Amino acid sequence: MLSSIVISSRIRLARNLYDLPFPNKLCDFESASNVSKAIFEILGEDYEYRRLKNLSNNQCLLLLESHEISKELIGNKDIAGYAKSPDGQITIMINEEDHLREQCIIKGFDLKRCYEKISKIDDMILDRIDIAFSKELGFLTSCPTNVGTGMRASVMLFLPALTLNGAMKQLIESLNQNGITVRGLFGEDSSCSGYFYQISNKYTLGLSEEDIIEMVEKNVKKIIEMEETARKTLQSVNESVIIDMSYRAYGILTNSYTISTEECLQLLSKLRFGIVLGLVKFKNPSIIDELYTNIEPAHLMDYYSLELSPKEQGIFRAKYIYENLENKLIKGV
Amino acid sequence: MLSSIVISSRIRLARNLYDLPFPNKLCDFESASNVSKAIFEILGEDYEYRRLKNLSNNQCLLLLESHEISKELIGNKDIAGYAKSPDGQITIMINEEDHLREQCIIKGFDLKRCYEKISKIDDMILDRIDIAFSKELGFLTSCPTNVGTGMRASVMLFLPALTLNGAMKQLIESLNQNGITVRGLFGEDSSCSGYFYQISNKYTLGLSEEDIIEMVEKNVKKIIEMEETARKTLQSVNESVIIDMSYRAYGILTNSYTISTEECLQLLSKLRFGIVLGLVKFKNPSIIDELYTNIEPAHLMDYYSLELSPKEQGIFRAKYIYENLENKLIKGV
Repeated sequence: MLSSIVISSRIRLARNLYDLPFPNKLCDFESASNVSKAIFEILGEDYEYRRLKNLSNNQCLLLLESHEISKELIGNKDIAGYAKSPDGQITIMINEEDHLREQCIIKGFDLKRCYEKISKIDDMILDRIDIAFSKELGFLTSCPTNVGTGMRASVMLFLPALTLNGAMKQLIESLNQNGITVRGLFGEDSSCSGYFYQISNKYTLGLSEEDIIEMVEKNVKKIIEMEETARKTLQSVNESVIIDMSYRAYGILTNSYTISTEECLQLLSKLRFGIVLGLVKFKNPSIIDELYTNIEPAHLMDYYSLELSPKEQGIFRAKYIYENLENKLIKGV
Repeated sequence: MLSSIVISSRIRLARNLYDLPFPNKLCDFESASNVSKAIFEILGEDYEYRRLKNLSNNQCLLLLESHEISKELIGNKDIAGYAKSPDGQITIMINEEDHLREQCIIKGFDLKRCYEKISKIDDMILDRIDIAFSKELGFLTSCPTNVGTGMRASVMLFLPALTLNGAMKQLIESLNQNGITVRGLFGEDSSCSGYFYQISNKYTLGLSEEDIIEMVEKNVKKIIEMEETARKTLQSVNESVIIDMSYRAYGILTNSYTISTEECLQLLSKLRFGIVLGLVKFKNPSIIDELYTNIEPAHLMDYYSLELSPKEQGIFRAKYIYENLENKLIKGV
């Protein structure tokens, strides 16, 4: 089944070693690699470890497209690394903007469980490594916006109805005034696309971890209610318009000769909306959520084992979508 | 096979009975029906005859959508009739704007043959009925724009490349200055849609029938050359864009939940363009040209034997297209 509104919850903690310059000033490669080694010793052999300098550009892009690492981490390729838990929920980026970016992502709406899970790891790290901490300010971070708890609590939401009825602009402004930041599918600097919005706390200072989680949860619950109301209204007024929109999106997805990533995201989300409302019947709907990642450039090239120019990517993307979605929509007038 | 550029050629002659008021002043129903009787006697039993007052509104619309009769003929429903030859090429509208509108339509580009065929019928009529004719002006008609030969020589063209490259506006202006009128798929007052353009003579006075045919033929040949050049240029620069456009049109046509006549025409023509260029492989392409008529409202209602509201028409149109086009496009990357 596809999640109807809440896609995933995520807690991220920013930490830095007390006796090391922040990564952007870290020219001493030995010290940099000592961070990785320390993490390796703490987390043990169950975790998967990677040094980015040992990866090809395409391998790095694969991880980026899968939301496992960030653009900033790739920017620090020479000193950067990452560790991933066996279940994939916990990842630690090493020498990103901060020495450590510990995060836990789980499906659905449960920030508290995310926090519990990542706290266990964080406690192990705090026990063994001397982390930069000020009694007055809290955890010290490379960017002042993370000082304090160093925590970002975020929830990824699918908000087609609030987008289609034009309510998002005003909602984002009002959330901003309440200390909530709204971002797109690809985190910071990414614009909202395919009806996906990442809701997170704007401030990390002056609030406890529990306060932050409670504040984000409260706002997310309010947004979920608004989206549910907007969906009901849309369905009662325009049900056939939504079916038509979903069907056409499917028609273009499965018949285009060439298609861009961005257009593909938009169309997948139009199709997704019809499915989660139960208006469009679909065999194996979970393939839709897999496609969001699999149609990205590095994933396509990896799948076809080919270096593809942007023009070729468009053609192979269309081919890939056709192969995965053809004959999956079940029609009935 | 689908015609690549020239769809059909048509000659129409306007004639009026000498001793009868023009149809718009014809309140004497007996005289009006005498026109029909006279035509029946001349053409004999092979022809099919209809009195419009004996037809339902939907039957009239079916004939209109099939381009067999005009809106004006339906406007004169009480006194109007029409006759059709066994092969369907010759139709005579009775008590339209003029007492007689004799026309011959044939596939392809051959105005001379159209003229030969309709002239035979016209000669039979001139032999037996006293037709309004002035030695100075020629044939007298209800509207002064038809006085003289009473003839319109027209050719229906499919001009996607000249439309897509933006050349049509200027071309239409220059044709107008050369005594050529450009109309849409549905004759007078219809705008150009689906890349179809009807090219015909503007003037009927001061030129012989042969002059008119020669002038229209000359201009059509010029337009054909321009379209061919424009297609070659488009193909050399943007071949994949055309394939993509055709494929997507097919995707929307076969997957929409509801669709308007106008959008359907546009999409059929985008698909048609890919097929006539040989870029898109299609099983049974002639179905495309049949769909242009079959998706019109009266045809849809006739096919499903249902009275359909405009909203229902959209849904049944989409269903009809799906049933006729599904699995007809043969893909190959």
